[in-house]
Amino acid sequence: MRLCQFYAGETVHVGYDLNETVLGDLTEALNTSHTLLDFLTDPDLLKRAVGHDWKTTPEALIPITEVRWALPVSSPSKIIGLGLNYRRHVEETPYARPDYPVYFLRLPHTLVAHQEPLKIPPKWPTLDYEGELAVIIGRDVNGRDDIPWQSAIAGYTLFNDASVRSLQFRGPQWTLGKNCPATGAFGPWVVTPDALPEGPDHLLLETRINQELVQQGNTADMIFSVGDIIRDLAQVIPLSRGDVILTGTPDGVGFAQKPPRYLAPDDWVRVRCPAIGELVNPVVLADD
Amino acid sequence: MRLCQFYAGETVHVGYDLNETVLGDLTEALNTSHTLLDFLTDPDLLKRAVGHDWKTTPEALIPITEVRWALPVSSPSKIIGLGLNYRRHVEETPYARPDYPVYFLRLPHTLVAHQEPLKIPPKWPTLDYEGELAVIIGRDVNGRDDIPWQSAIAGYTLFNDASVRSLQFRGPQWTLGKNCPATGAFGPWVVTPDALPEGPDHLLLETRINQELVQQGNTADMIFSVGDIIRDLAQVIPLSRGDVILTGTPDGVGFAQKPPRYLAPDDWVRVRCPAIGELVNPVVLADD
Repeated sequence: MRLCQFYAGETVHVGYDLNETVLGDLTEALNTSHTLLDFLTDPDLLKRAVGHDWKTTPEALIPITEVRWALPVSSPSKIIGLGLNYRRHVEETPYARPDYPVYFLRLPHTLVAHQEPLKIPPKWPTLDYEGELAVIIGRDVNGRDDIPWQSAIAGYTLFNDASVRSLQFRGPQWTLGKNCPATGAFGPWVVTPDALPEGPDHLLLETRINQELVQQGNTADMIFSVGDIIRDLAQVIPLSRGDVILTGTPDGVGFAQKPPRYLAPDDWVRVRCPAIGELVNPVVLADD
Repeated sequence: MRLCQFYAGETVHVGYDLNETVLGDLTEALNTSHTLLDFLTDPDLLKRAVGHDWKTTPEALIPITEVRWALPVSSPSKIIGLGLNYRRHVEETPYARPDYPVYFLRLPHTLVAHQEPLKIPPKWPTLDYEGELAVIIGRDVNGRDDIPWQSAIAGYTLFNDASVRSLQFRGPQWTLGKNCPATGAFGPWVVTPDALPEGPDHLLLETRINQELVQQGNTADMIFSVGDIIRDLAQVIPLSRGDVILTGTPDGVGFAQKPPRYLAPDDWVRVRCPAIGELVNPVVLADD
């Protein structure tokens, strides 16, 4: 099943994917104040969502075209990104293939929802797309827990880990380039793990600028799989319910093109995974 | 003036530095629920603290020896660290002198208060000390604001940016080595900017292991001063009230010794700045 969060007025509601044109408002239909994360981590709530008879709540049916999308997790306690995690992407960078997963951190002020604008900082107009699979953690877990990594995962969604390259590479740490405001697009749909019966390791992932296909990868080409990442991370950093892990981007990013191709105002970036959905964001120049 | 936070039972109270043996409990004396950050950013509250007649509230006087210290900011929204910011420290590392400040992020799960143990991860027993000046941001600020950097600062405190070197250097990003649980000692005293009439740019900073002096630096030797850092950061990342900036460590860190000298269980690390105070933490082996 696929869920999302969206705005009903100023309030964030949880939405259910009924069909291509209609969203079910679970917050309204079930009269709850639970978040998407609550639904993902509470089997009874999920069962109520699946079993709901939408004919009894016609006021909770929303045309997709009217939806104002919200972040699937409003303010994750941790947003842990991976760099250099696809073989051919490593080859297009100056870096060597890593022996271990390479992590960086994003902060919540960088996040934007589906259809919200990604912002180019005017002093550093080198914003670059990175389409990615993102994992939402559903339970507290650390390296001492002897649990299968699958049980840590509440759901899968999409991320555009857009990076300001001139800041990312002005010194040895990527921090600034990954933390400009409104550069991390996140969502819109979260699929539950049972919607990916073959797991997260064979997913097609595509990025388009406007209509042009610029990245086409498959999670099978990850150097470190979702399972590898969770096992590695949890040994060091205790993971918490609601943490988000960005699993890295395939090859085809803009800075590796000759000449480099950065995002420009009025571009639209689309990150698509057929099994999950499509994340679409316009690009604008930020206020100076 | 110097303030701190400490535990009164399970509640965090704000303390006032009365003298070397007695702490004044401002939460009790003024009957408020304000945090240390509230005091730092509200001149009226500070005035009430300074003007309080402690003889009228003898129950609010606490022997220093009985204090159980708390973090000066309980859960900072951002903890932004600097690497490679002292000339002689850069020379003891394999890195070149940076052209711009080099930032990394810590997460709140890494923080420990004064006298709480720093933890060595058993699988990576390479915990290293880094005594530092830390800055607490007092107001929201971004690069568009034309304000003097001083007005962004609520107070100064100390930090031991202890780093797990084998994780920090296992790949190109330092993230894991800076984010092991219980590796960032923070506090105990926060001095208000008026307590440093000559500013933060000529402060002696010393680190000792047990009684041995292992780092002795001066903030005058920073490559990027506190003002440089705030101006640079705020252009990219909007700073918020309660954010914490760690300004980098002088030379003398353990991994640069021959042979490397890492922290061992039962060591005590002391970070001292005469104008601010002393931050003392024992070292233990974490549970596996």
